[in-house]
Amino acid sequence: MALNYISAKEAAALINHNDNVGFSGFTHAGCPKVVPKELAKRAEEEHSKGNPFKIGIFTGASSGDSLDGSLARANAVKFRTPYQTNKDMRNAINNLDHDPIVYFDIHLSQLAQEIRYGFLGGVDIAVVEACEVTESGEIVPTSGVGITPTICRLAKIVIVELNSRVPKKLRGIHDIYELQDPPKRRHINIFEVQSRIGLEYVKVDTQKIFVVETDAENEGGHFTPVDEITSKIGENVANMFVSEMKKGDIPPTFLPIQSGVGNIANAVLGAMGNNKNIPRFEVYTEVIQDAVLDMMRQGNISFTSGCSLTLSNEAMDKFYLDLDFFKNKLVLRPSEISNNPEIVRRLGIIGINTAIEADIFGNINSTHVMGTNMMNGIGGSGDFTRSAYLSVFVTPSTAKGGMISAIVPKVTHEDHSEHSVKILVTEYGVADLRGKGPYARAEEIIEKCAHPDYRPLLHEYVSLTKKGHTPQNLYACFAFHQAFLETGDMKNADLRRYLK
Amino acid sequence: MALNYISAKEAAALINHNDNVGFSGFTHAGCPKVVPKELAKRAEEEHSKGNPFKIGIFTGASSGDSLDGSLARANAVKFRTPYQTNKDMRNAINNLDHDPIVYFDIHLSQLAQEIRYGFLGGVDIAVVEACEVTESGEIVPTSGVGITPTICRLAKIVIVELNSRVPKKLRGIHDIYELQDPPKRRHINIFEVQSRIGLEYVKVDTQKIFVVETDAENEGGHFTPVDEITSKIGENVANMFVSEMKKGDIPPTFLPIQSGVGNIANAVLGAMGNNKNIPRFEVYTEVIQDAVLDMMRQGNISFTSGCSLTLSNEAMDKFYLDLDFFKNKLVLRPSEISNNPEIVRRLGIIGINTAIEADIFGNINSTHVMGTNMMNGIGGSGDFTRSAYLSVFVTPSTAKGGMISAIVPKVTHEDHSEHSVKILVTEYGVADLRGKGPYARAEEIIEKCAHPDYRPLLHEYVSLTKKGHTPQNLYACFAFHQAFLETGDMKNADLRRYLK
Repeated sequence: MALNYISAKEAAALINHNDNVGFSGFTHAGCPKVVPKELAKRAEEEHSKGNPFKIGIFTGASSGDSLDGSLARANAVKFRTPYQTNKDMRNAINNLDHDPIVYFDIHLSQLAQEIRYGFLGGVDIAVVEACEVTESGEIVPTSGVGITPTICRLAKIVIVELNSRVPKKLRGIHDIYELQDPPKRRHINIFEVQSRIGLEYVKVDTQKIFVVETDAENEGGHFTPVDEITSKIGENVANMFVSEMKKGDIPPTFLPIQSGVGNIANAVLGAMGNNKNIPRFEVYTEVIQDAVLDMMRQGNISFTSGCSLTLSNEAMDKFYLDLDFFKNKLVLRPSEISNNPEIVRRLGIIGINTAIEADIFGNINSTHVMGTNMMNGIGGSGDFTRSAYLSVFVTPSTAKGGMISAIVPKVTHEDHSEHSVKILVTEYGVADLRGKGPYARAEEIIEKCAHPDYRPLLHEYVSLTKKGHTPQNLYACFAFHQAFLETGDMKNADLRRYLK
Repeated sequence: MALNYISAKEAAALINHNDNVGFSGFTHAGCPKVVPKELAKRAEEEHSKGNPFKIGIFTGASSGDSLDGSLARANAVKFRTPYQTNKDMRNAINNLDHDPIVYFDIHLSQLAQEIRYGFLGGVDIAVVEACEVTESGEIVPTSGVGITPTICRLAKIVIVELNSRVPKKLRGIHDIYELQDPPKRRHINIFEVQSRIGLEYVKVDTQKIFVVETDAENEGGHFTPVDEITSKIGENVANMFVSEMKKGDIPPTFLPIQSGVGNIANAVLGAMGNNKNIPRFEVYTEVIQDAVLDMMRQGNISFTSGCSLTLSNEAMDKFYLDLDFFKNKLVLRPSEISNNPEIVRRLGIIGINTAIEADIFGNINSTHVMGTNMMNGIGGSGDFTRSAYLSVFVTPSTAKGGMISAIVPKVTHEDHSEHSVKILVTEYGVADLRGKGPYARAEEIIEKCAHPDYRPLLHEYVSLTKKGHTPQNLYACFAFHQAFLETGDMKNADLRRYLK
């Protein structure tokens, strides 16, 4: 059957106020661009006529500015899940009085199934970027997958942004597989990082497909080089791995690595590549960044499985040129599979994620600045941390030029509990929390990870705590944050101010 | 080869100061009794001679008084993991100044693998209760499994308490299977609650077995009946399930139930059995309590998989008499399997666990009283909650005659984050957190779950928060707990006392 080609504006007209819209992609990678921009225009037009126009946005993770940015600026969002990094979206989520955008923060691996279970309302429309769409309804995604298989199956209408800038020969790099729901669910047939269990495309009834042609550019921006602190964190992680191998706690074949998003993740991978005592390894992760591709070219990484190629525009262009090299060494999966705890635990993945702050017991805040303002969301950190062979959190010991300590008496929002966190690393060192009780954890974290400027204050806090299994003082535990809110510097913390 | 029979005293003499000792069982069920008591005596003798004598204790979960109680009272413990409920053990963990007993609180499903990975030091000796041990080295556990397969394989010496009070025909009720470690791990071949994948016994080299004969009684004590509040909580859970089935969010075949330990769990199951709109269902859980067996007899539950028969002594005796009825309807597995997140997510288990306190955003404290004193440990609540189809937490809205509110502005210790908690239930009602942002969560939890006496205070707290995605006030968030510590009643909370 011939496909139905329409303009982006016509596509936007298919979407109604109050619709739940599922978008392809994971980070900016693989997200549609022209339809969401047209949709933002449409919302503004409707608003100018006095008509309401807001949609629910479901994605794999964060998205590009054309999507989250345009729609947030157009005040066209009623609901957003599961993750976001766009400045305007973030401001809308944080700044108004009463849930102006309801943001629902959920583990990325769980979103597709919770949509299927009916827990979050239906998905009415899917908007997905593709590098190919066939007359038999095969849709080949671009550089990110996310929840694409689920939203394409469930939506009544599937709008495909067919992007001519992405080479059709990307076909074959994806492994598209959707799980059955309980009670019919089977195991996921992945036993190696490179296992393939699905199709090269998402298959949809052609009648519900509308194609919008585009050549919009990747929204990856430029690569930020590592700095002194992040590279020291990377070295500390790499040295810790070497010592774990010597002890026999990591097997000599090594184990697959998951590494979070951003600069520190790039630095950690870089340091692992530079360390001659770490053998060639595999990556089973959600986001594949520039550093991974470089290390694959250099032979440090033998195979990579992920959900998206979250690359700078330069790296993306280079990747397309080297597609023949990468095609049998890399696979892109839906987030439900890339982040699945079953696989994480089976493969024995070593998970490395970034903390906003950690407390002296190893509880981690991954989401909230000063306990109130949402940064990005929990993302996949929980999917990996909770089931990892070894879960590692990394963070610079301070932020804001030393005025914020990343190591605090108590985290202001907790996303990962001490029960799931094994190793904490800053530029100062490595705290190993395995088998340690709370006092020993506090000592280890303060002495190995905290910035020296904050160590006396942290020790003083411990000395002021009420004794028990976990030493705490409910009058002083947020003195660091109070000092920052009042004076702009946690070093002014007055631990005794409210003491009884 | 003939087995080596020794006395309990001789067995205790095989254990040295500083040894790590692994014990069979899960809760009091299946724990050895006479050897730990002799070991406590031995420790006291050594201490009286001025010799040090302390061991590390590894179990499946909590244990009986002969084990945790005797050894804690004898001051014979240097390290304890992963869970405990004994008064003397708890006091030792909480009362002294500097980790006198290092207690390491870990998800129960992870203990066996972390022992194998080498993260917690080796296990030198295993002490396991059995109802049968053969000359070929087959050890048949009694009413609880826990980490038995792993400690028996790793330990140099396996002391078997052969308990003649437990009928040998229990053989066949266990399904003993130990996972391979990464990178060789395969999937767990369980696709139905009743799947069997292992052996009826733990097999060990006979040369390392020493048998101690005993007829020690089960340490189950008596059954506590449900009261008005717990039975109302049970009804609220059962009615919520019926409404979820009507909406189609729970399939008409229902899904397997996990239900935590204690009185509320018994009440929830009881209410489910009394509700005619809930079909016959299956149980995939860790601890099988009295209520489950009664419901199996009545036909409300068709099959039960668990790690232990944690029964009152009356129910245990009755169970042995009815063994022919139960044998093809019940299986006991190692904790690594009974609590495995891979299975929990695959089978779509509905997890019901008890909270000590919940905050207005749905974060849960399962372990610490007033943030400092350890109650029991996280147990299996994290194994189930994190991967459940639907995770439910239950708690009475108040404790200590109304002077403690279980719903607070912020939990003093967080074991389960808002990301993993879907439903919260008290005797007042059901808060559904799915798809809701923090403001809506707070409204839902305060209005549906909090005790009416505390609702105005909780609303006042929200009104005093700093706006942002998650409304919080770091000066007032522990005012409830401060009021309790100072006056013995949370209702005296002065939310404005420290406000800036």
